Amino acid sequence: MKNLDSLSLRRLNGKLEVLDQTLLPHEERWLGVPDHQAMISHIKRLAVRGAPLIGVAAALALAQEKGDLRRKALELRESRPTAVNLMNAMDRMLAALEAGRDLQAEAEAIFFEDVDLCRRMGERAAEFLNDGDGILTHCNTGGLATVGIGTALGAIRVAHESGKKIHVYVDETRPLLQGARLTAWELGRLGVPFTLICDNMAASLMSKGKVQHCIVGADRIAVNGDVANKIGTYSLAVNAHFHKVPFMVVAPSTTLDPDCSSGENIPIEERGAEEVRAGRAPQSAGTWNPAFDVTPRALIGRIVLEDRLF
Amino acid sequence: MKNLDSLSLRRLNGKLEVLDQTLLPHEERWLGVPDHQAMISHIKRLAVRGAPLIGVAAALALAQEKGDLRRKALELRESRPTAVNLMNAMDRMLAALEAGRDLQAEAEAIFFEDVDLCRRMGERAAEFLNDGDGILTHCNTGGLATVGIGTALGAIRVAHESGKKIHVYVDETRPLLQGARLTAWELGRLGVPFTLICDNMAASLMSKGKVQHCIVGADRIAVNGDVANKIGTYSLAVNAHFHKVPFMVVAPSTTLDPDCSSGENIPIEERGAEEVRAGRAPQSAGTWNPAFDVTPRALIGRIVLEDRLF
Repeated sequence: MKNLDSLSLRRLNGKLEVLDQTLLPHEERWLGVPDHQAMISHIKRLAVRGAPLIGVAAALALAQEKGDLRRKALELRESRPTAVNLMNAMDRMLAALEAGRDLQAEAEAIFFEDVDLCRRMGERAAEFLNDGDGILTHCNTGGLATVGIGTALGAIRVAHESGKKIHVYVDETRPLLQGARLTAWELGRLGVPFTLICDNMAASLMSKGKVQHCIVGADRIAVNGDVANKIGTYSLAVNAHFHKVPFMVVAPSTTLDPDCSSGENIPIEERGAEEVRAGRAPQSAGTWNPAFDVTPRALIGRIVLEDRLF
Repeated sequence: MKNLDSLSLRRLNGKLEVLDQTLLPHEERWLGVPDHQAMISHIKRLAVRGAPLIGVAAALALAQEKGDLRRKALELRESRPTAVNLMNAMDRMLAALEAGRDLQAEAEAIFFEDVDLCRRMGERAAEFLNDGDGILTHCNTGGLATVGIGTALGAIRVAHESGKKIHVYVDETRPLLQGARLTAWELGRLGVPFTLICDNMAASLMSKGKVQHCIVGADRIAVNGDVANKIGTYSLAVNAHFHKVPFMVVAPSTTLDPDCSSGENIPIEERGAEEVRAGRAPQSAGTWNPAFDVTPRALIGRIVLEDRLF
């Protein structure tokens, strides 16, 4: 059994562990994955998050199970409803099971393919980022969201490491602050200059001419090019459109859903009220808390996959 | 000396007190105002906030001072830079001082005029709100932001009390959560049905046809109709424009600045990084934290003052 090592998922000496992303940036605590139920729990409470990562993590969790694999794969598959990478990874594991292939080898292949996909799409997307650019990003799409260098943030990393002087504006990404907690932490580690803003400041920044590109990841891409991504992406895309700022989506081809004709058919997960109230609003306040939104194709300038460009 | 009593400012038996709005909704603590410096401190740390309220509060704080009134008025006038009501109130007090008029009477007049202005603009703006409407609002513009029923939220209150069935969507309003903490608290007290959302969800709500009106207050209105208001207003206006949702600004005429030709000339207060980091981002993360933004006239459908309509 190979050792696997990424920013937020590792398997050393056969012991699978995930970094608890809910505790970042203040604490780096690794969690064990004794069985598939533990992984489901980690995914549901977002200790493990990021569309590509949850696909890889679920595959590795399934691979270490002994019996009843079909049921367990379906349970893992349903742990979150919007990102399609998880479903694609589980379908691939089920196909391997059906064909009698080795599940460990299949899960490891998914792991190493994600590393490769990240590198390829990062290099492809980075070509559109220019020296001197201000780049606005949303949520976290980096090493924490994948087992490679990331999707949108991977492109930023490639651009930075190739010597382009870029400045990243990081949307904090309410309600769960993946931008403030995770992207800020990653960019700090990488030494990429950045400025953290509240989501509602992005439009002002664009009106001041500070943003040359918006760049985000995706949780699911429909056949017509509509993109489901972290809540707030749509608002950003509308603002980018208004300010004529290029809007780029970077994702692996495992994010495409050939069974989904348009964004209207993408199921959007709704989460609990306390994430929005956050202990600050009256306890009785009702909320609406969709975890994702859908950005129509017409507002997206470019979708960069590892092998294709739309 | 008259007793004065409003939701967040009172003077009973000659003792001026303000409600500490930073502690709402969880604690209702009234703060004394022993001198003008205390009021400056309350205003700077947003214990007292809301463009109309800080004008009234500063006038009452000045009125209880004994000597050196001109200097104290100028110090109060500079406690926050963006809202012009404060400057207008202080200029009026200085003119009264110059003319030898009674400062207590002048400050009391400012107080009662604000109550009257709120009622008048609320009634005027409420006419545009219809039975069955979903109404999106930003920040807090209610009884807490004024000494009357409020500006934009006053219009919502009038519409509700006149029997129109409306549903309010409340932007939480990062970074200081005036929507989540203050507007939610006020609407709960008033029994107006509402749903709290994160700022980045407003666009999705509009795309689903849930919002018939956006309605906000203002901190300063330039001669050309550009409006400075709480950060996030501009993003909302761009989204309302894109979704063809009417966008209405409700403010008293004391928010007009005849010396300000356009929004570009409105000074925008920038506040500290910790408001954005909020203990969740890495301590080293740099931020940009403008407290306000400017919405150009072209994106505003209607500006409702107590006596005029643009």
